[in-house]
Amino acid sequence: MSNIDIEVLRLGHRRGRDPRITTHLALVSRAMGVSKFLLSGDEDEKLFENVVSVNERFGHGLDCRYEKSPLKYLRNIVNNEVNRPTVVHLTMYGEPFKSTTPSIPKGNGVIVIVGGAKVPGEIFKISDYNIAVGNQPHSEVAALALFLDALTDGDGFNQEFPNAKLIIHPSKTGKDVKEV
Amino acid sequence: MSNIDIEVLRLGHRRGRDPRITTHLALVSRAMGVSKFLLSGDEDEKLFENVVSVNERFGHGLDCRYEKSPLKYLRNIVNNEVNRPTVVHLTMYGEPFKSTTPSIPKGNGVIVIVGGAKVPGEIFKISDYNIAVGNQPHSEVAALALFLDALTDGDGFNQEFPNAKLIIHPSKTGKDVKEV
Repeated sequence: MSNIDIEVLRLGHRRGRDPRITTHLALVSRAMGVSKFLLSGDEDEKLFENVVSVNERFGHGLDCRYEKSPLKYLRNIVNNEVNRPTVVHLTMYGEPFKSTTPSIPKGNGVIVIVGGAKVPGEIFKISDYNIAVGNQPHSEVAALALFLDALTDGDGFNQEFPNAKLIIHPSKTGKDVKEV
Repeated sequence: MSNIDIEVLRLGHRRGRDPRITTHLALVSRAMGVSKFLLSGDEDEKLFENVVSVNERFGHGLDCRYEKSPLKYLRNIVNNEVNRPTVVHLTMYGEPFKSTTPSIPKGNGVIVIVGGAKVPGEIFKISDYNIAVGNQPHSEVAALALFLDALTDGDGFNQEFPNAKLIIHPSKTGKDVKEV
């Protein structure tokens, strides 16, 4: 895992429409050293099963849980926790990530909020940082990956995943997969 | 646009399953200065309409077209074109992107191949580079964004989009959108 304790909170998941995007968010989180993935919006056991299946095959790397009341959860951390994590909201309306990310305090961990279809205004206020990965509409998956890359100083993919059954070795020419 | 001529080729699009992921690929391409997006697999007019709509609102930035025969298209470039673009295939099986990307020739442009459900073996052979953004399963959207960031030396989002009707100004605290 990364030496920064990173948690990703996905807001407003819609089971009918978002499973693949949210799964990509979870798998990017796992691959880049995030320890916890909190899903809010619709519950989605199948999505969690997909992540468990990747953990089983490629090594353990991400715990998922459902959070019914994300605002209550955040309010409690921001108002009551001593030495609390920094709360970062990714939004196309925020400050430029490349110049802002180096100043984010990481010592007590970072909660990264990834918006959904409609983000409550309070999220902008409760967050310590509103960060934009470009001010153009594109993808929350891309935004999360680029932000995590900046937050970890490009070290996000240097992870070890315990108990992997499959290990992929980098190759110039094809597939080099080892079954353990 | 970026001063590198970048084209993204999406393989194996499935209209029933992939529209959101492929739309995210196209929008990441647009936001990060790619000039052309080639779709192969299923045709998908609605997907192109979404990109046109973003171009109309946020400024022109990406041309899309359908490519029925991606292998033929690539073979022709690789075998027949003088001063041809470099062909880069993004795959979880490839070489590490951070160390490999700086050596990629960019002077004649770069074609970035983003795989779909099943990638023909010939793609690995015809490509000048097989590049991995981490050797873990995650997301082609994240892989494309991180690769483009590396290819453009972190300059991907410094784009101007002509004839924008909406311009988002970076903000610490909320939404600052200007209608032009």
